[in-house]
Amino acid sequence: MSRSFITLTTDFGIGDHEAGVLKGVIWRIAPQAKIADLSHDISPQDVIGGALLLARCTSYFPAGTIHVAVVDPGVGTGRRGLAARIGDHYFVGPDNGLFTLLLKKAEANQQLVECVSLENPHYWLDEVSNVFHGRDVFAPVAAHLANHVSLDELGSIVKDPVRLNFPEPVRTHQGWKSQIIHIDYFGNLGTNIRIEHLAGNKDIRVRVAGQEIRGLVKTFGERPVGELVALIDSNDTLAISVVNGSAAARLEAHIGDPVELIVNSF
Amino acid sequence: MSRSFITLTTDFGIGDHEAGVLKGVIWRIAPQAKIADLSHDISPQDVIGGALLLARCTSYFPAGTIHVAVVDPGVGTGRRGLAARIGDHYFVGPDNGLFTLLLKKAEANQQLVECVSLENPHYWLDEVSNVFHGRDVFAPVAAHLANHVSLDELGSIVKDPVRLNFPEPVRTHQGWKSQIIHIDYFGNLGTNIRIEHLAGNKDIRVRVAGQEIRGLVKTFGERPVGELVALIDSNDTLAISVVNGSAAARLEAHIGDPVELIVNSF
Amino acid sequence: MSRSFITLTTDFGIGDHEAGVLKGVIWRIAPQAKIADLSHDISPQDVIGGALLLARCTSYFPAGTIHVAVVDPGVGTGRRGLAARIGDHYFVGPDNGLFTLLLKKAEANQQLVECVSLENPHYWLDEVSNVFHGRDVFAPVAAHLANHVSLDELGSIVKDPVRLNFPEPVRTHQGWKSQIIHIDYFGNLGTNIRIEHLAGNKDIRVRVAGQEIRGLVKTFGERPVGELVALIDSNDTLAISVVNGSAAARLEAHIGDPVELIVNSF
Repeated sequence: MSRSFITLTTDFGIGDHEAGVLKGVIWRIAPQAKIADLSHDISPQDVIGGALLLARCTSYFPAGTIHVAVVDPGVGTGRRGLAARIGDHYFVGPDNGLFTLLLKKAEANQQLVECVSLENPHYWLDEVSNVFHGRDVFAPVAAHLANHVSLDELGSIVKDPVRLNFPEPVRTHQGWKSQIIHIDYFGNLGTNIRIEHLAGNKDIRVRVAGQEIRGLVKTFGERPVGELVALIDSNDTLAISVVNGSAAARLEAHIGDPVELIVNSF
Repeated sequence: MSRSFITLTTDFGIGDHEAGVLKGVIWRIAPQAKIADLSHDISPQDVIGGALLLARCTSYFPAGTIHVAVVDPGVGTGRRGLAARIGDHYFVGPDNGLFTLLLKKAEANQQLVECVSLENPHYWLDEVSNVFHGRDVFAPVAAHLANHVSLDELGSIVKDPVRLNFPEPVRTHQGWKSQIIHIDYFGNLGTNIRIEHLAGNKDIRVRVAGQEIRGLVKTFGERPVGELVALIDSNDTLAISVVNGSAAARLEAHIGDPVELIVNSF
Repeated sequence: MSRSFITLTTDFGIGDHEAGVLKGVIWRIAPQAKIADLSHDISPQDVIGGALLLARCTSYFPAGTIHVAVVDPGVGTGRRGLAARIGDHYFVGPDNGLFTLLLKKAEANQQLVECVSLENPHYWLDEVSNVFHGRDVFAPVAAHLANHVSLDELGSIVKDPVRLNFPEPVRTHQGWKSQIIHIDYFGNLGTNIRIEHLAGNKDIRVRVAGQEIRGLVKTFGERPVGELVALIDSNDTLAISVVNGSAAARLEAHIGDPVELIVNSF
């Protein structure tokens, strides 16, 4: 399994030096690595947002890809650093729940999961600051993984990586109570309703922000520009959109806002 | 003609997973490809903005480069997907006019143009969503092109790719009626007046937002900070700028606003 | 010393074609080069911001890396273009002070410094616009450097590269008068107090925007969410932060605002 690729996901923003410096640290140790930015625009300290992005994206990369994720409000405290093999991919970052969804999915699919706590400073930069482990610990560890260092050289096995509680839909007698968990660049509202919650039912209604949407569309183009629609998005989750517009702006919606799904044939 | 390079231009934004996932899909199929982000910050659904960016940028890449462009409000409808060779470059994206300016230029220069409609699912991901052909169709097709699959394996020839009507300057007895077609990060106002509309005349006046600018400068540094100037920009089009400032902010200008060019010696 | 890597730092923004076109120009000349974006989101014309970013970042890249920096309000005027070797790294960009901090550090460490003025058009694009030397001069020069062209082929030696005056802290009887020189994506306030100004003293107070902070923390996690703290950041400079929040927003702070450091044991 080649370990040629390294991806970067952070909340560093794109206007400062932090995102760029990770690439330098990696190439000093593993000049052969091919590096891809996933996003550096996670909201500051938004571990859940980072976890969602990783879960929606990383499995599309080649087996053996090493994913560095740094959303790290606990940097410099006792929180552990992790390197993990989850299925066919490697992950490096703080042990704060960023990998929760990936761990869950791998375990559900009975895939290999192996986590170690980063303890061996031989694989870090010589000086480690208290506030930038992305540069001083996680990027160098990822580069050493690309050089085929094994997980057990990095530290000791961890059986209890931190897991976050992601809000799950709650069953009602009519359907599901759910919530908005993501708002994308287009203003589409992603919910925590997954395709399996619908159990094949298409005769549904969605209530959000005082509006009711009847039925699901398959594509935006089925309806006129400006119409509010519900659909199963490319992540297999229920989303609320405005055709060629922003549902977030139209509904003044925010992450955490309630969404009610009514399944007429329940 | 090497096909080592792939560029990405989308309206996905930089905070979500969509831009990153394209890189994963490409590398799974063509791990040797070198990938460059052009921009993921095209305004949502702004096909014209995407078309302008491609026209200003792609010819500077090596012959054989494959450019993936996804600004795709019609995703999942009957709109075709395209792969094209235009001159020495390859392009992949929805058939919605994104490539209009490139087609026009290639035809004017009697360069090779060959377009095919994406019909062969062998070169797509196994599952194709209705809302994310960037991931499921265009990125895999680009990767297969990088692996030297030929255009005719991807689908059948298209002679009528969609073309957008870009607004053109209208001749007046004094010069040209034109408009703002682009506003950049600096707040420079790009117009649709091209260098050929001036026919060598430098004794001109530009009227915009109630202001009149006399003559053209060659560089910003010719005039004091804060002065409103007109110049021929690096795209060979007439632009209106404020020295070390933002013409867009100063003039409260928007795309589509009128610009009048008066050529004194006409 | 391998010259495989090229980094890009500009004020072009991420929504336009300018950042992408640099990559095309480089790969046409040096297809083997590995290119990393550092940032394209420097504020327009903010030479000082660009200089700070380069100083905080470039030394982490492999020896021989070529750093292209384009924050260039004087483009097209008499200002020189520079290529430089500073220590183990190469730099290309306008001669306007972008490299001031790097030159200063290299000279302090008695490292090699060699600058040339870009005069040989053989290493530029055939046509050079008056407003986009990033594309027409600096990117091609960087690519030729990657192809092992030597500095002296690019132009003649320059002994007086432009240097900016960065504001330095001023000694008071109680400590130092300093100022905010950078505000990052998190809203952390970076000052021009460096670790050596503290001379090992930890019994300090920091006054900023009418607030007084006592002592330094080592990590954000030492204090409750929302508390205003001072710390030595990963650049070895004094920073003011809000735990899991934005000090810039809390204090309505701006670059240039005064910060007073009181060293109790002075």
